Amino acid sequence: MKNVAIVGLGLLGTSMAMALKDKGIRRLGWTRRGDVRKSLLEKGVIDETADNPDDLLAKADIAVLCLPVPAISEFCAEHAEAFKPNSIVTDIGSVKRVVMRKASEALADSSATFIGSHPMAGTEKTGPDAAFPELYRNAIVFVTPPCGGDPARVRELNDFWKTLDTKPIPIDPDEHDRLVAFTSHISHMIALALTNAVLASAGGERGLRGLACCGAFRDCSRVASSSPAMWREIIERNTENVVDALKGFKHELETLIEAISDGRYDDFENMFADAKKIRDAWMAERYPNLL
Amino acid sequence: MKNVAIVGLGLLGTSMAMALKDKGIRRLGWTRRGDVRKSLLEKGVIDETADNPDDLLAKADIAVLCLPVPAISEFCAEHAEAFKPNSIVTDIGSVKRVVMRKASEALADSSATFIGSHPMAGTEKTGPDAAFPELYRNAIVFVTPPCGGDPARVRELNDFWKTLDTKPIPIDPDEHDRLVAFTSHISHMIALALTNAVLASAGGERGLRGLACCGAFRDCSRVASSSPAMWREIIERNTENVVDALKGFKHELETLIEAISDGRYDDFENMFADAKKIRDAWMAERYPNLL
Repeated sequence: MKNVAIVGLGLLGTSMAMALKDKGIRRLGWTRRGDVRKSLLEKGVIDETADNPDDLLAKADIAVLCLPVPAISEFCAEHAEAFKPNSIVTDIGSVKRVVMRKASEALADSSATFIGSHPMAGTEKTGPDAAFPELYRNAIVFVTPPCGGDPARVRELNDFWKTLDTKPIPIDPDEHDRLVAFTSHISHMIALALTNAVLASAGGERGLRGLACCGAFRDCSRVASSSPAMWREIIERNTENVVDALKGFKHELETLIEAISDGRYDDFENMFADAKKIRDAWMAERYPNLL
Repeated sequence: MKNVAIVGLGLLGTSMAMALKDKGIRRLGWTRRGDVRKSLLEKGVIDETADNPDDLLAKADIAVLCLPVPAISEFCAEHAEAFKPNSIVTDIGSVKRVVMRKASEALADSSATFIGSHPMAGTEKTGPDAAFPELYRNAIVFVTPPCGGDPARVRELNDFWKTLDTKPIPIDPDEHDRLVAFTSHISHMIALALTNAVLASAGGERGLRGLACCGAFRDCSRVASSSPAMWREIIERNTENVVDALKGFKHELETLIEAISDGRYDDFENMFADAKKIRDAWMAERYPNLL
């Protein structure tokens, strides 16, 4: 039986522990708060815990750092000596370039190998109480192997992610960060700007605006309820790509505003029809069960 | 028992018929397609139908026109003679200024009164197959009475909407159109621009982009799968307000892009924290069951 250490028992760490139940894996769980460790052990969400994470890392074939982005490489540096010889250390962070560089540096003198991971899974909520075992199901996981790393360890990590019913996809860390700026980070920025434009700027109309906002606004703004501190840490480490993605979006928005302002409603309808066609095709590819 | 005619059996009309089951109302349903009329009658979704809508209108205390926006006043004009004397005619259209003016004109010589309605309910889907009885539950319905209209008829219409577990709110048609530009129309325009920015402009990266888009994109872009023709009809009749709302949003977006580009991450985090606070409060008001 393989030992997997899950370090950080928030939404992603706790959901991972839940999803690994009865998968032939011993779940060694650690998080800063002793009461959370105790409670999750009692509930059977983890199989073992310890006051000192080093006691778990020494036994772990794979250590998954489910920590905020800056904490990932900090944890590697502070516990570099503790990881089991020849083990795999991975993470769940939303940016990979900076994390790969700093975590690999931190483990330069260790026989443990850092291989980055980014499961495309999450909600706007945080903390162990928001966790649920289906969070990872069918998610894509981007995996960023280090240059010249051992292919056998990458295969082992891929197998781990498959145990969670996810689909690992190898990618270069720079390419990853550019990609997710467009596919994930941009949606968070738009949700934030939409919420502020509709509700924060409403003045005396706030009450009526709140009543008149319904499903379209609710879904479009959902991820504005995410953690501001977490998103600051992500955006700080992916500024250039996020700004590029937002400028591309702004261009689309300006084209749309011009078409409507000029009364070119045929053009507007064609733009909408293009978007509908491409989104319907995407939904059929990615979420056929939701159609 | 009150007779209610539902004219147009798409998503909104069919869901209305479903929700009115066992509410002490006889549901007279009509739609252009004879096969849909027959099928919904056989399934018990409507209680009565006819080849000619006039045969139903003659009996209806309330006629609800669940039609595309341009068709609402056209239907009133074509069937002005057919409505039951002193009955109420209403609609479900997403804009109210133009609809109120044209439908009231069409019924100027009739004893039937047009009172506009706009239930804030819908999905990105269309047609009777997408209908479900909970669509209207807890929805706000904006009601636009005509100037100098009979308050008793407005009360009667309000009572009808309450039968559907919705909350009718009276509003001036101009104020309505401005309000929904901010609370609904804007989200549709953003979903459209986002879809085009992320997927239509992806070039050779389209496949990878599609894989890397997940929950945040899915929800933020959902209403881009709505009917382009329907949205053209709405936006054409609310251009000025929609452009104002989009310009307000664009200003928020530019403020955000500048903060990130300049590396003012404290400002960015504060903007995100403001948005999260206001959206969390809004969710607690409007959708406490979803928290």
